[in-house]
Amino acid sequence: MGNTASSDIPLQATPLDNDELRAIDGWWRACNYLSVGMIFLIDNPLLREPLKPEHVKARLLGHWGASPALSFVWAHLNRLIRRDDLNMIFMAGPGHGAPGVLGPAWLEGTYSEVYPDKSEDAEGMQKFFKQFSFPGHIGSHVTPETPGSIHEGGELGYSLSHAYGAALDNPDLIVACVIGDGEAETGPLATAWHSNKFVNPVRDGTVLPILNLNGYKIANPTVLSRISHEELESLFVGYGYRPYFVEGDDHEAMHQKMAATLDAVAAEIRAIRERARSAGTVERPRWPMIVLRTPKGWSGPKEINGHKVEGSWRAHQVPFSDVRGNAANLAVLETWLRSYRPEELFDENGRLVPELRALAPRGPRRMSANPHANGGILRRELKLPDFRAYAVDVTQPGKILRENTRPLGEYLRDVMRCNMQTFRVFGPDETASNRLQAIYEVSKKVWMADLLPEDEDGGELARDGRVMEILSEHTLMGWLEGYLLTGRHGFFHTYEAFAHVVDSMFNQHAKWLDICKNHVPWRASVASQNILLSSTVWRQDHNGFSHQDPGFIDLVTNKSPSVTRVYLPPDANTLLVTADHCLRSTNCINVIVADKQKHLQFTTIDEAVVHCAKGIGVWRRACSDEGAEPDVVMACCGDVATQEALAATAILRERLPELKLRFVNVVDLFKMQPLTEHPHGSKPREFDSLFTVDKPVIFNFHGYPWLIHKLSYRFRNHDNMHVRGYKEKGNINTPLELAILNQVDRFNLVIDVLDRVPRLQGRTAHLREDMRNAIISNLNYAHTYGIDRAEITDWVWPE
Amino acid sequence: MGNTASSDIPLQATPLDNDELRAIDGWWRACNYLSVGMIFLIDNPLLREPLKPEHVKARLLGHWGASPALSFVWAHLNRLIRRDDLNMIFMAGPGHGAPGVLGPAWLEGTYSEVYPDKSEDAEGMQKFFKQFSFPGHIGSHVTPETPGSIHEGGELGYSLSHAYGAALDNPDLIVACVIGDGEAETGPLATAWHSNKFVNPVRDGTVLPILNLNGYKIANPTVLSRISHEELESLFVGYGYRPYFVEGDDHEAMHQKMAATLDAVAAEIRAIRERARSAGTVERPRWPMIVLRTPKGWSGPKEINGHKVEGSWRAHQVPFSDVRGNAANLAVLETWLRSYRPEELFDENGRLVPELRALAPRGPRRMSANPHANGGILRRELKLPDFRAYAVDVTQPGKILRENTRPLGEYLRDVMRCNMQTFRVFGPDETASNRLQAIYEVSKKVWMADLLPEDEDGGELARDGRVMEILSEHTLMGWLEGYLLTGRHGFFHTYEAFAHVVDSMFNQHAKWLDICKNHVPWRASVASQNILLSSTVWRQDHNGFSHQDPGFIDLVTNKSPSVTRVYLPPDANTLLVTADHCLRSTNCINVIVADKQKHLQFTTIDEAVVHCAKGIGVWRRACSDEGAEPDVVMACCGDVATQEALAATAILRERLPELKLRFVNVVDLFKMQPLTEHPHGSKPREFDSLFTVDKPVIFNFHGYPWLIHKLSYRFRNHDNMHVRGYKEKGNINTPLELAILNQVDRFNLVIDVLDRVPRLQGRTAHLREDMRNAIISNLNYAHTYGIDRAEITDWVWPE
Repeated sequence: MGNTASSDIPLQATPLDNDELRAIDGWWRACNYLSVGMIFLIDNPLLREPLKPEHVKARLLGHWGASPALSFVWAHLNRLIRRDDLNMIFMAGPGHGAPGVLGPAWLEGTYSEVYPDKSEDAEGMQKFFKQFSFPGHIGSHVTPETPGSIHEGGELGYSLSHAYGAALDNPDLIVACVIGDGEAETGPLATAWHSNKFVNPVRDGTVLPILNLNGYKIANPTVLSRISHEELESLFVGYGYRPYFVEGDDHEAMHQKMAATLDAVAAEIRAIRERARSAGTVERPRWPMIVLRTPKGWSGPKEINGHKVEGSWRAHQVPFSDVRGNAANLAVLETWLRSYRPEELFDENGRLVPELRALAPRGPRRMSANPHANGGILRRELKLPDFRAYAVDVTQPGKILRENTRPLGEYLRDVMRCNMQTFRVFGPDETASNRLQAIYEVSKKVWMADLLPEDEDGGELARDGRVMEILSEHTLMGWLEGYLLTGRHGFFHTYEAFAHVVDSMFNQHAKWLDICKNHVPWRASVASQNILLSSTVWRQDHNGFSHQDPGFIDLVTNKSPSVTRVYLPPDANTLLVTADHCLRSTNCINVIVADKQKHLQFTTIDEAVVHCAKGIGVWRRACSDEGAEPDVVMACCGDVATQEALAATAILRERLPELKLRFVNVVDLFKMQPLTEHPHGSKPREFDSLFTVDKPVIFNFHGYPWLIHKLSYRFRNHDNMHVRGYKEKGNINTPLELAILNQVDRFNLVIDVLDRVPRLQGRTAHLREDMRNAIISNLNYAHTYGIDRAEITDWVWPE
Repeated sequence: MGNTASSDIPLQATPLDNDELRAIDGWWRACNYLSVGMIFLIDNPLLREPLKPEHVKARLLGHWGASPALSFVWAHLNRLIRRDDLNMIFMAGPGHGAPGVLGPAWLEGTYSEVYPDKSEDAEGMQKFFKQFSFPGHIGSHVTPETPGSIHEGGELGYSLSHAYGAALDNPDLIVACVIGDGEAETGPLATAWHSNKFVNPVRDGTVLPILNLNGYKIANPTVLSRISHEELESLFVGYGYRPYFVEGDDHEAMHQKMAATLDAVAAEIRAIRERARSAGTVERPRWPMIVLRTPKGWSGPKEINGHKVEGSWRAHQVPFSDVRGNAANLAVLETWLRSYRPEELFDENGRLVPELRALAPRGPRRMSANPHANGGILRRELKLPDFRAYAVDVTQPGKILRENTRPLGEYLRDVMRCNMQTFRVFGPDETASNRLQAIYEVSKKVWMADLLPEDEDGGELARDGRVMEILSEHTLMGWLEGYLLTGRHGFFHTYEAFAHVVDSMFNQHAKWLDICKNHVPWRASVASQNILLSSTVWRQDHNGFSHQDPGFIDLVTNKSPSVTRVYLPPDANTLLVTADHCLRSTNCINVIVADKQKHLQFTTIDEAVVHCAKGIGVWRRACSDEGAEPDVVMACCGDVATQEALAATAILRERLPELKLRFVNVVDLFKMQPLTEHPHGSKPREFDSLFTVDKPVIFNFHGYPWLIHKLSYRFRNHDNMHVRGYKEKGNINTPLELAILNQVDRFNLVIDVLDRVPRLQGRTAHLREDMRNAIISNLNYAHTYGIDRAEITDWVWPE
């Protein structure tokens, strides 16, 4: 096999002349030398003296296997960038091959620019080597500390969706995305190939996927490296690409093949763009991609102790250990390092020689320094319309029903209108389901796959749409992350229960942001990731138990307080205020929980502004303590939880007018934590003044009740807090029935109050009985008619 | 387009004679009639009188769109099962089309067998209709209550991996798996197609994927329905299948095409099996699959109010509402229902007429009653070797270092050996990395993709291997679930941090088990799902921050206590005891957290048995309270946490011999919850007797510290509990450095004790200073040499 493409474009046999070939091979050898140095050396970086045991790290850590192919691609892309003045960034999917990315960044001078102590000389090189996989320093996969990268190489699966996210709305950008054949087995990667149906060649940039078949994972061959050429080619044709194959292990021959292929690919990308941008109509092109089959640990030791290493899973990590104590291994290492002929590559100070330096592009054209890979530099504030214009008119609280997310949709529509190149909305086939469809008035769903005549009738599809919908939360989240990290803004919405599909992506992005914000000063701030969880646990109707899970926010509270925010606005106006706040913020993950169904409206927009600014507050109109010390605090957080808590207070006011009750609503969940634990937390005195230090608190919560305990256990009155929430009691239920099963309903809340206010005990048997009867009669009604009594929403707010 | 296959096998044009055609169409019409009835009717089920508003449900819920194609496939498979006496089960990927699965189950009599009130008559049919999507009854997607199903249709993405899991080790079984084109966009589904590289045609059954391109999701077209025929065909050839296309909407023509295609497919499956089973060597066959392109909402209203419905996203759910109040809509519904000619289908009692009944298979051959779909019936106890034989010999606690998971690997090897048809191990390319490689002595990794000569040298691959490895946690978990739910046993292991990749699958399986165990009495108990989290947060070395996440168990504690178990054995012997217990259990998800690296060994196997049986206990040898009331309780949970807590007690014993300290270790995490909350919980008196009611407790925890608060907040001494754990402070660190950063290390724990025991305060400045110095000097050592001081593990257990 060799230098072939499924297209009929003839490839040049030897596009590189001898000088070019020597230079590109030299640059690659320099990369490989640095890679091996990073893994093994703590001293004698240029091998100016014979290698001794004390030059070798005490503990050998890192991944050699994926590294050489990464820098091979990098070197060849550099040639292209220089020749065609391309705007290109690099995505390293085989992320454990960090040496293959760090090396180029150092050779291009970028590393020394952002970390001056890793200077372009022997001393800097020594530090550069030592820091790798060394305690207190950088990891063995591509981490946020790596200039030129927006893609963490720890967890695998997201390189390709990140690449597509970066390409959106960047018409001149090419995102070269190297995908490992291990990563290619993950679900998120396997479906991300279909992203090509969502990029528009006129408006968006180009992703050039380069699948590196090095054949092995940690200890296994990879699936895609062990199927026939016919199947492999069919697969990528099936995914909608034109695959080019570059396969082999001879260095010189592979340089020629790669250069020829990249020449063809670059020409093809140029042609596709020109064709699309000059044509009146836009059709989905068949974008090129490359299958690069190279040995794992390419250019490393071929064999050790009779076992194959190059081209084997044995090359995955450190191919041999015990170097300090074993003279034979030390010799193998020295031979390996010297095989790259460092004396030809670096001058006497340890700097890359000028002929090789000339190979890299200059300034921001260097992939290690391209501003798109430090997107905060390019970020501009969103132009935001005044959210007040979208407010629900609430003349009397608790009287009108509105879908909470619908005004948000109108607001987002105009956010979109004002930011038609820097803002996108992402959701898994649920924009309309989540009542955000007003957005379509300004921009429809992008769709580059086939269109049918019937799409005209309400399909809301367009080649140049800016709403991203695919039934893959992974792909959407990956697109969004790529879009944000290259300096743009976005809004993701999904069903609450299925946010768990991307739990791990959330974790990784939170970790990425935390490191960038607190430990990588050269990274400019990026827009926050905004996540709306709608179609929540309390309104699942026919979907039932499998769709009931409010636990995503539990996950959020495990991550760094520096970057996590959770909001549960109780109505449409507080949701608007919250969304406006989130869209202005940077470097956070804002999770907003708000249901799409009709809910009672409680706050005017002015009240909403005040309430959201505080994040937590007393709702005076629902209180009966007249500012004095109450008998009981009724607290709540979340739309349905607030409605039921209010209804309970209404019952209590009518039936027990002498009861002094305080009503507290929480919008900003982290207000329930101490300020010492979270920047949005409460000071003890503030918390005590709301929740008292000794009175019973009934807390009606949207999510799992123990989350409130987890957050608030340090506060003085915690032991008196009685939290209600979802406790996995559900199936197909009416809204009230589901509330009753989980005891977050008005009737159970009244009983909770009766149980916990000492002076009421013994005097309330009648009310308690009425509550029990109300529960039974409402359940009976639901089971007979399949719906709740209509008037259940009538009696919520005290007159 | 039409009746084509990419193979050159000629298909019959009209395989069905007129009688067969009439019968199969009748059966399908009966299914569709039932589907529409379920969604709309609450009375008058057989339309024996004109349809009136009161016959229609007050709230219309359910998904019509996917249903007709599901029952179309079911009807055709029934013909095949009867003719060839096939052993077949049905997987409904487009899970919201429950009516298309419930209808067949009712027509086959199974539904009435398991739910006698849904009898095969008009009264039963009325109840059958009413219960659908009705409060307190069954959901609109395929739920555990559905006979014949092992696949919840709520969250999408797992049908195909479930199907493959069911087929493993069932050589005669065919799993027909209908995949929705919406679901096909998810990552988990997109990579599950590669499962064909892991089934062996000699030993395993066959999965027949049937991709139903109905064209639409909730509100969007689907990607796979909008690419060219060439791309679609290439994609499945690339995935390694032989695709057959059945496309159209004319009922009669489609019956003939489907029958002809299934005839060809059945013959092909038979031929593949015969070839493989008679040959000496086994190669991967190109299994057939079917692309079934039919209109969404097929056979339903073609148009409503001028909008296309059949073949459009408008058919996704209920195609029109307001039936009770709108006479025109009522008429549309009646016409639609009568278009199926129910009077021809059901006899005067409401039972399916005999000619149509004859179409379904009998007894356990019915897909709705196949025992593989109620796998607990088929489950046999595992034959388990005596775990004591694998124990580490611990003559003195805290003196020897062993990899905790290695003896487990030897134990699992022999579990495998004793259960070579009913037990499998699943892990993402990490069996050896997690030190479980002893298993390979008995059975290697199954690999049906290409083999190379070098695989002989340590590749551990075999065509008949029983260890399942692919770099997709989704696929592995799906296989395991399918394997368990069809009555077998398994063990899944993964990196702790990346267990979050399958958070949502865990949630769904926990919900499935909870419903089955507590609400579906006819479902027999299945083996528990055993999950080992290894490569834990505390031992990430060069992987660093992105690999540090102990939060999977937080997720577990949100799900039903009826099915959730979490164990953190501190050493190899407790891990063995725990694994043995888990492998014997049923209907649970057992999560075991145990690191793979070398750890100190504390318990003899006899002590481990006693300790694990209690789940929590005092370790006398580490105590200095001599059974009296202590000054402080040092508690711990998890391997590293235990080591550091023990080391702290050793320091305290030496430096403060007068301090009365109690040492408590927790193996069973739910012991930290009250018994009222979890069946493994503690009674208040038990808890108080361990933790006292008023003494300070320093709790050193493996995971996020607040999880302990979340579990234990109801206990009397909770306010005195001071929990240490991982708090997202990490990067590339030595083990001790990481512990220090998160304050779970011995030195910080000593300081915690000094801070909290009142009588010590003021008398311990020297010790406190020593601890601070120890922290600094150990960090300096790590940053200089890249490793911890060797002796850090020496001084742990008090002499």
